[in-house]
Amino acid sequence: MYKIAFINGPNLNFTGIREKAVYGTATLDEINAKIAEEAAGIGAEPVFFQSNSEGALIDFLQACHSDGTDGIVINPGALTHYSYALRDALESVGPPAIEVHMSNIHRREEFRRRSVTAEACLGQICGLGADGYILAMTALIRKLNSTRQR
Amino acid sequence: MYKIAFINGPNLNFTGIREKAVYGTATLDEINAKIAEEAAGIGAEPVFFQSNSEGALIDFLQACHSDGTDGIVINPGALTHYSYALRDALESVGPPAIEVHMSNIHRREEFRRRSVTAEACLGQICGLGADGYILAMTALIRKLNSTRQR
Amino acid sequence: MYKIAFINGPNLNFTGIREKAVYGTATLDEINAKIAEEAAGIGAEPVFFQSNSEGALIDFLQACHSDGTDGIVINPGALTHYSYALRDALESVGPPAIEVHMSNIHRREEFRRRSVTAEACLGQICGLGADGYILAMTALIRKLNSTRQR
Amino acid sequence: MYKIAFINGPNLNFTGIREKAVYGTATLDEINAKIAEEAAGIGAEPVFFQSNSEGALIDFLQACHSDGTDGIVINPGALTHYSYALRDALESVGPPAIEVHMSNIHRREEFRRRSVTAEACLGQICGLGADGYILAMTALIRKLNSTRQR
Amino acid sequence: MYKIAFINGPNLNFTGIREKAVYGTATLDEINAKIAEEAAGIGAEPVFFQSNSEGALIDFLQACHSDGTDGIVINPGALTHYSYALRDALESVGPPAIEVHMSNIHRREEFRRRSVTAEACLGQICGLGADGYILAMTALIRKLNSTRQR
Amino acid sequence: MYKIAFINGPNLNFTGIREKAVYGTATLDEINAKIAEEAAGIGAEPVFFQSNSEGALIDFLQACHSDGTDGIVINPGALTHYSYALRDALESVGPPAIEVHMSNIHRREEFRRRSVTAEACLGQICGLGADGYILAMTALIRKLNSTRQR
Amino acid sequence: MYKIAFINGPNLNFTGIREKAVYGTATLDEINAKIAEEAAGIGAEPVFFQSNSEGALIDFLQACHSDGTDGIVINPGALTHYSYALRDALESVGPPAIEVHMSNIHRREEFRRRSVTAEACLGQICGLGADGYILAMTALIRKLNSTRQR
Amino acid sequence: MYKIAFINGPNLNFTGIREKAVYGTATLDEINAKIAEEAAGIGAEPVFFQSNSEGALIDFLQACHSDGTDGIVINPGALTHYSYALRDALESVGPPAIEVHMSNIHRREEFRRRSVTAEACLGQICGLGADGYILAMTALIRKLNSTRQR
Amino acid sequence: MYKIAFINGPNLNFTGIREKAVYGTATLDEINAKIAEEAAGIGAEPVFFQSNSEGALIDFLQACHSDGTDGIVINPGALTHYSYALRDALESVGPPAIEVHMSNIHRREEFRRRSVTAEACLGQICGLGADGYILAMTALIRKLNSTRQR
Amino acid sequence: MYKIAFINGPNLNFTGIREKAVYGTATLDEINAKIAEEAAGIGAEPVFFQSNSEGALIDFLQACHSDGTDGIVINPGALTHYSYALRDALESVGPPAIEVHMSNIHRREEFRRRSVTAEACLGQICGLGADGYILAMTALIRKLNSTRQR
Amino acid sequence: MYKIAFINGPNLNFTGIREKAVYGTATLDEINAKIAEEAAGIGAEPVFFQSNSEGALIDFLQACHSDGTDGIVINPGALTHYSYALRDALESVGPPAIEVHMSNIHRREEFRRRSVTAEACLGQICGLGADGYILAMTALIRKLNSTRQR
Amino acid sequence: MYKIAFINGPNLNFTGIREKAVYGTATLDEINAKIAEEAAGIGAEPVFFQSNSEGALIDFLQACHSDGTDGIVINPGALTHYSYALRDALESVGPPAIEVHMSNIHRREEFRRRSVTAEACLGQICGLGADGYILAMTALIRKLNSTRQR
Repeated sequence: MYKIAFINGPNLNFTGIREKAVYGTATLDEINAKIAEEAAGIGAEPVFFQSNSEGALIDFLQACHSDGTDGIVINPGALTHYSYALRDALESVGPPAIEVHMSNIHRREEFRRRSVTAEACLGQICGLGADGYILAMTALIRKLNSTRQR
Repeated sequence: MYKIAFINGPNLNFTGIREKAVYGTATLDEINAKIAEEAAGIGAEPVFFQSNSEGALIDFLQACHSDGTDGIVINPGALTHYSYALRDALESVGPPAIEVHMSNIHRREEFRRRSVTAEACLGQICGLGADGYILAMTALIRKLNSTRQR
Repeated sequence: MYKIAFINGPNLNFTGIREKAVYGTATLDEINAKIAEEAAGIGAEPVFFQSNSEGALIDFLQACHSDGTDGIVINPGALTHYSYALRDALESVGPPAIEVHMSNIHRREEFRRRSVTAEACLGQICGLGADGYILAMTALIRKLNSTRQR
Repeated sequence: MYKIAFINGPNLNFTGIREKAVYGTATLDEINAKIAEEAAGIGAEPVFFQSNSEGALIDFLQACHSDGTDGIVINPGALTHYSYALRDALESVGPPAIEVHMSNIHRREEFRRRSVTAEACLGQICGLGADGYILAMTALIRKLNSTRQR
Repeated sequence: MYKIAFINGPNLNFTGIREKAVYGTATLDEINAKIAEEAAGIGAEPVFFQSNSEGALIDFLQACHSDGTDGIVINPGALTHYSYALRDALESVGPPAIEVHMSNIHRREEFRRRSVTAEACLGQICGLGADGYILAMTALIRKLNSTRQR
Repeated sequence: MYKIAFINGPNLNFTGIREKAVYGTATLDEINAKIAEEAAGIGAEPVFFQSNSEGALIDFLQACHSDGTDGIVINPGALTHYSYALRDALESVGPPAIEVHMSNIHRREEFRRRSVTAEACLGQICGLGADGYILAMTALIRKLNSTRQR
Repeated sequence: MYKIAFINGPNLNFTGIREKAVYGTATLDEINAKIAEEAAGIGAEPVFFQSNSEGALIDFLQACHSDGTDGIVINPGALTHYSYALRDALESVGPPAIEVHMSNIHRREEFRRRSVTAEACLGQICGLGADGYILAMTALIRKLNSTRQR
Repeated sequence: MYKIAFINGPNLNFTGIREKAVYGTATLDEINAKIAEEAAGIGAEPVFFQSNSEGALIDFLQACHSDGTDGIVINPGALTHYSYALRDALESVGPPAIEVHMSNIHRREEFRRRSVTAEACLGQICGLGADGYILAMTALIRKLNSTRQR
Repeated sequence: MYKIAFINGPNLNFTGIREKAVYGTATLDEINAKIAEEAAGIGAEPVFFQSNSEGALIDFLQACHSDGTDGIVINPGALTHYSYALRDALESVGPPAIEVHMSNIHRREEFRRRSVTAEACLGQICGLGADGYILAMTALIRKLNSTRQR
Repeated sequence: MYKIAFINGPNLNFTGIREKAVYGTATLDEINAKIAEEAAGIGAEPVFFQSNSEGALIDFLQACHSDGTDGIVINPGALTHYSYALRDALESVGPPAIEVHMSNIHRREEFRRRSVTAEACLGQICGLGADGYILAMTALIRKLNSTRQR
Repeated sequence: MYKIAFINGPNLNFTGIREKAVYGTATLDEINAKIAEEAAGIGAEPVFFQSNSEGALIDFLQACHSDGTDGIVINPGALTHYSYALRDALESVGPPAIEVHMSNIHRREEFRRRSVTAEACLGQICGLGADGYILAMTALIRKLNSTRQR
Repeated sequence: MYKIAFINGPNLNFTGIREKAVYGTATLDEINAKIAEEAAGIGAEPVFFQSNSEGALIDFLQACHSDGTDGIVINPGALTHYSYALRDALESVGPPAIEVHMSNIHRREEFRRRSVTAEACLGQICGLGADGYILAMTALIRKLNSTRQR
């Protein structure tokens, strides 16, 4: 079993509550339940965390360094576009991370096209809704499995 | 009675304590007392909140979504110029918001001329000192009254 | 009684006639009538001027220097974004001015976010519809009263 | 018969008088005479106006709103590149407008490549000399006819 | 009779098939048929070419250098905004060219406002739908006739 | 069975042949074989196409409009960063598309961080190696299934 | 005797009235009187014009084309920084012009460093106060004399 | 004895734990111990604070205003590059501050070259490893001593 | 004998046919004949290729990877300034390449000063006319000889 | 008698020798002789210096601080556009300076429009040929006389 | 004993002579005397050099390569902001260098915030007045001692 | 025999001494010896000059104007990127010049991609190591021969 942390940044706790036209009607709890369901089938043990605070997100990320976390799926919300502090935390923390955005950041306001955090991740998935989290988890498990086999 | 939240961001708790030449000699508590005094006369019930933390400000804003808040007057302090997270919170929270700056942001450093949060508000009032809060409250009450009448 | 000049720039005479979705259905005459009504109650004597010509607006502003005008409420229309000449007139004219925009200039086209005239005013109010004029007048009267008392 | 206004901005009254290498030898009066001649054959009734003043151009445009003008052909001269006020007038005035430039604005100084007024028109014709006015008139008549037929 | 080449670039073969709200319901074949019809009346002999390939468009343009082509009407599609190679071909090929865009490129995304190819043409017509092709042809014929007469 | 087109742009036929440190040792044929293998298990019928020519890629994309293609996985190679023509083709073609990059475009040269094609896709997956193609296919199948069920 | 036009743009009629720290205490009339005095000694016949209107300035400039004006000294005020229309008028009018600014435009706000009108003049003099007008007149007379002698 | 606050921002608690090639092998505790050791010899009483939260850092800075702190040594981590809120706190807090970076911010990514916080400090020391803190402390003590002597 | 590929991009087949003032009167065939003549004397076996199509150029470059080509001399024409796809092909193909421009790209339009392809080559020669090809060939032969000798 | 230093920067010793079309046919020695001649009549004692070396120019400027120089006329040549060191020398040296350019820097290449040295001078005169030096001297003498009289 | 070179660039020989408000009242000789005094106590042998000439500074730096210099303290004055030549000299010369600025370059004009030379140094100290030189020397000695001990 | 000046700018005297990985192991003397050797065979008489001083380089260039120099090969080192003074010297000096860089300036830091001096030369050769000098000499001789023959 691989321990995978799912980290959501500012305002993502409002998913499914407001702006449903953009983000869909599923709440973050419902999305996490769906992730947990799929995780079981592919050998992943999910841990969930959400905070509106950049500092708390960095604290949580740093804890991943030594608590046995094997991989990180992170949606930094709007911090994506300016939080170099979060970026540095991702760079230093250890386990591989994949950045996820539910909406297609290339189709929205200009400022959303630039990610300062993605450059400290393995890669980025955007525009595929809540499925993005599951695809990211799948990608991490594939990667961790192939590494173990070597 | 309309419930109006007055939210002040980083460093505004130092108003009247330091840099009095720029921000005046009234402390935030004195300003809030003045607001409360005027609120009574126009049917507003003010709630006050100040924090230096972006995360705490977003938490408070989100709480306004379901605690009966009718309008928001917000001075995001320096977060005005880079906090896309605060902007997204304002966009999603529900009650109408008006951004206030005590100083004229067009007359200071270049970086202060750009507001990323104002685009998620009804409008912005700047340069009118502590009166700006009262004018914003007045504008919200007018708007809420006219909406109710329809 | 304080004499307050209300100056409107290009195209604002079309308010309430065209683009009602953006600017509302009240005409400039109706807005001015509303201002006059409210002015009486707070000791203000309004003077109204509108022109589509940058030069005529500057002429009018300069006249305010010596005709006993106590304060200026100005909506420069699209001149806001490029008329350094209007800005210099505001800088030199004398009575304090407040800039007003009925729509939220931070929510429209990119070029509308920059004001070259606001930096020559006390401050700016935007996004609050025709109420913006009244709020600006209120702010000027408060300021003039407090100055007189000293 | 469709009433078509031909509006020329700053310096265009000097066409054919100075800088003949760039703008040709026909004067604005000769160009207008040519337009009038061709107008007759396609059911257009031309009205001509030229001014060096941005304000006067906006006044004239606004008058087109209610005097039965069916279409507008406008060459804003150098105002093309910075007059957001003219742009807003075009946006609000009503009858469809086509922007014309006698020279190819893409082949001259960098600043001439950007039009802030064209985005408030149906389209733009440039580089085709005085014929541009006639082509624009033709296009308007075609459009007006096809609209009427529906 | 003047031989006029009508050259359409990438995706213009999808006109009338997809995105009809933007480009209208007439297909490119129907547009070309309309052009051919009008051409007869003004002494033009149209040749039609469309390709999605920048290289094929340049090959065709170069062929116009020595096959008796008298004028070129070109809609380079999205190549307009970055194909310096097409621009250089237009610059060197010989017969005069007019650039046409069916939509108003000044009213769409920012990147569409810049044409790198128009500076190698006589001029540009945009925003007038399929009529733009016919207007461009008319302009070329007028120009060719006036040149011949001298 | 859903028909999914896998489209690879310039230089991707050299995957596994050169620059193995960046792109891995698997060749494009081996990657496609792996995709075909996984496709069978999730109800997808893959079609493969690669070309170094922008025009050929657009031709192929347009063919997808009417040949029963249900979804598109596209890696435009370096065209990602400047081919507005490819972008327009993606916009107009019909079936939903997902953009894939094997490397993390946010960790390489500055010019690779901007995608002009992603804004015409559902979303984008980058940095996850050849797995990106499979994840994109999975996402399309999930989406197509959920649409069908409604 | 050479006829020299002295043209002042927006707000320069306020010289000596407001902002004396920047522009000195002499009024425009006093400056003009001083110019007239010095003009006599060097064979110049000065004509003075001031307007706050861009259009009126262009009208006056155009009149210089045929009323025997031999040279132009112009201080366009803030129009210097954006009025391409004034620039085009200067380009086309005929007699040589010299641009004057009383203050050193390189020592003030960033936007004042760029002159769009100077490139249509012989040259520019700035930072030398009201003397700048006299120096410019002197330069024109020298130039006119040396031309006549040839 | 002078009370000197040593404030470290986001991720600096990971110094010596991760990315040792860049930041060295000493942990923050070891660095602080070294500072305490040297402090004794020059009359400084160090206080240490680290947080990943911008808000907590501002809270701590504000407390320095009235708790007898004589000087501040601050390494804002990545907040250096965008936290205008931290900058405003430094501006208003009172005791002089020196900014320290262990690595040479001019030799790393472009975004690290700009400090928005340094402009609210006395000065900045970068690139000298953990010695930077001790040098900053020395500089503050020198300055405080020289001020006292006057 | 070393096999050297001479690759010319869009419009270079028009050298000597059009725009002779810029590119000289020799045709591409004459230039190639001259190269062949000089090649014999220094142990080079030239292969010539020209295409107006980016895709065909990449195809040809990729073929050089395994057909025994020892060096490449390439003039990408206008693709120099935007074809990241060509750049990536050069990066991956194997044999060393030298970029050649007949004109001095630093003396022409601004857009020609930037080469995106040169960074994937050994170096660049510009402004020396058709001699540039021969100098590049000479440089490659010198380099290949010195490598062989080691 | 006022001592006025005339300082010429790089390449100005080639005036009248090369590029006569731009700079005229008078050599620097002839220009200086003319200046000396005119100086006598207005109470100025000129000192001449020219160097191609930025360092030597700064050395000379610094010497002006204490050798009785009353004013400086400087033509920094191309150093105008980047030498912040020369700018700082002008800022610190003491006697007032006027910058002179013989050609109109606003009519030449883009880089020549920006002066970094003018902001450390009283003002700037450009485009008036060698007369510029004499006008600058005149302006300095006027200024020095008026200062003495107070 | 370590030999440390103290190199000062343009205008620093005027320290304490002019602009004392910015740079203090101590002359460069007095500052150097102070450095020499402190050097003795920490095992440093200082060598002093100042020049206003970029070339002379590079010559001196190159001499440090082979004359036994152990470390370099350099204040390049305004060359900091544009002298890539000085930067390259620092990069190639050998002994470690620390850049010093007496004033806080982040609090002055925009152009002073960028250092092109600091990226070729160990680090930078700014804003701490003449103490900056002594702190830099201390840092070099600490570094040299710790290297020697290994 | 043609006299060819080889001019090297700042830091090029350190070639082969430091940073051998970038510039190779041959010293400038060895490179010059090689050039002299090859020069003999093609009728060139080389003259060598190196300086770290911009002023000395300009002095030397100016001397070439009248000492019989037939051609110039110049490597301006880092001055390439900002010395407009050197550029102006090259523009005015007379004999044709070719700019040489041993490294490929398109593959290094961003600031090295822009040459302000190349636009005053015939052309530029970069990235071909010390051979670049010999190729430039060859190109000049070819050019001089072909000119003489006419």
